[in-house]
Amino acid sequence: MAKLINELSILGVGLIGGSLARALKRARACATITGFDSDSEALDRAVQSGVVDQARRDPVAAVRGADVVVLATPIGAMEKLLQRIRPGISTETVITDVGSVKGSVVNAARAALGQAFSRFVPGHPIAGTERSGVDASFAGLFENRLVILTPVQETEVRALSLVSQLWERAGAQVATLSVQGHDRILAATSHLPHMLAFALVDCLADMDDSEEVFRYAAGGFADFSRIASSSPVMWRDICLANRDGILKALDSFGNQVEALRRAVEQGDGARLLEIFTRARTARDEFQRQFVPGAPASER
Amino acid sequence: MAKLINELSILGVGLIGGSLARALKRARACATITGFDSDSEALDRAVQSGVVDQARRDPVAAVRGADVVVLATPIGAMEKLLQRIRPGISTETVITDVGSVKGSVVNAARAALGQAFSRFVPGHPIAGTERSGVDASFAGLFENRLVILTPVQETEVRALSLVSQLWERAGAQVATLSVQGHDRILAATSHLPHMLAFALVDCLADMDDSEEVFRYAAGGFADFSRIASSSPVMWRDICLANRDGILKALDSFGNQVEALRRAVEQGDGARLLEIFTRARTARDEFQRQFVPGAPASER
Repeated sequence: MAKLINELSILGVGLIGGSLARALKRARACATITGFDSDSEALDRAVQSGVVDQARRDPVAAVRGADVVVLATPIGAMEKLLQRIRPGISTETVITDVGSVKGSVVNAARAALGQAFSRFVPGHPIAGTERSGVDASFAGLFENRLVILTPVQETEVRALSLVSQLWERAGAQVATLSVQGHDRILAATSHLPHMLAFALVDCLADMDDSEEVFRYAAGGFADFSRIASSSPVMWRDICLANRDGILKALDSFGNQVEALRRAVEQGDGARLLEIFTRARTARDEFQRQFVPGAPASER
Repeated sequence: MAKLINELSILGVGLIGGSLARALKRARACATITGFDSDSEALDRAVQSGVVDQARRDPVAAVRGADVVVLATPIGAMEKLLQRIRPGISTETVITDVGSVKGSVVNAARAALGQAFSRFVPGHPIAGTERSGVDASFAGLFENRLVILTPVQETEVRALSLVSQLWERAGAQVATLSVQGHDRILAATSHLPHMLAFALVDCLADMDDSEEVFRYAAGGFADFSRIASSSPVMWRDICLANRDGILKALDSFGNQVEALRRAVEQGDGARLLEIFTRARTARDEFQRQFVPGAPASER
């Protein structure tokens, strides 16, 4: 197959950037992949293990000559990075990112990129593991996973199309949403569960006999708390960037918990049964519709 | 190996009762396993599929002649069932249960069993899936899982020893805790996560565009919400039986969420990083100590 991209530049070769490089190499989608990372040891390992073809110690050097630049750093680092690379960007370069919040990144890109903003395609692969770093990256991370692109009015069709194809070559399915829709939906489906997982682990670790508590933690706890091992820096940045969406999701969740708490306090069995049955039905429906091959629970 | 138990009676052949019967059959631990279930169709299927050797339509008939009786119904049904079977119990019969809350069951058994209470061994296997019913049962459910027994002052050593051996033959590891310790610890590690999962699913299902929301639900959500498919009746009973423990766990969790919410609202990045790092460290420590073979997350 013809190369989709001649020169690809990935800024941030962690779990996502590294896995994208591996996936595109496997698909032979690029002639050359150049990496940059603020952690120079991680960058060395990325070259040594063949994740990228070459490394640049300076982000401007890394993007010079690139047809596509992918920003795969924590979102808190993106604004400065966009400002830094601007001198290295050509009038043809397409730029995209992988941040979990889109509103803040779009604002940063609009401010930093000037005319080049029309070739900036905001993106978010719904994929990841609780591990982070280039050593955790693997080529199959995006297979059959959704990548959400959130083009804005200025976004050029050519740029959107190229970034869509890039993700498809990495094995992903591409969908588009508005910036606001993305941030609201992800606040509920991803950011909120992470907040709850962090708070739950903290809550248990805070108990007087936390060692006993963890010893008897049921299987469900391990599932539930897996996402509490996610990168603290990444989640700090997400909380700062999607403040309003997360606060709204937390408040809406708080109302549901309060209703449940009241039913427990009042010993209202009928109400509890109603709440649990509704949740089970909704969850089974989710599984049936959106998780291929997953069985619904037995009645 | 010699039969551990001549006649075993299992009241309630659902996921837990059915899996225990299968595990003990595989281990050739009993001469005969008799089943009773209030759902006569489920009981028929349990006999047809060889989960139990024989069925009785009446719980008194099911326990008559039994050396060991296992109560494996939702805990809300246990008190009446204990009262009903008392006439069928011999002066040697050992009785145990599998309820997820121990205080309420111990009270019910003390009230219902009279002298026979000294041969009642409160038990709780920390095992299960989100599926329920005899068709979901399987012999390996308890392999390397913990079973917590909570003997009280009156409990006879012979009874405790026999029930311990029964669970070991089913593949489980047996630990003992006080009744109060069990209910407090399980409120935090099992009951609380289930409440959060039910509330989270409800919260998402309640959003205006819930179909869109579920479509973009990330992988973490599927993990997190798996336990929201658990049996609503079982969880109603647990909430009614461990009201105080669950309220305390919910309040303690509420304080952690409130601290997190405040940090998000104030955009306090340093505090957020501290909370997320502490949770990640505690969770990795839990994995390292208590989940054999599990890798810690990458730093």
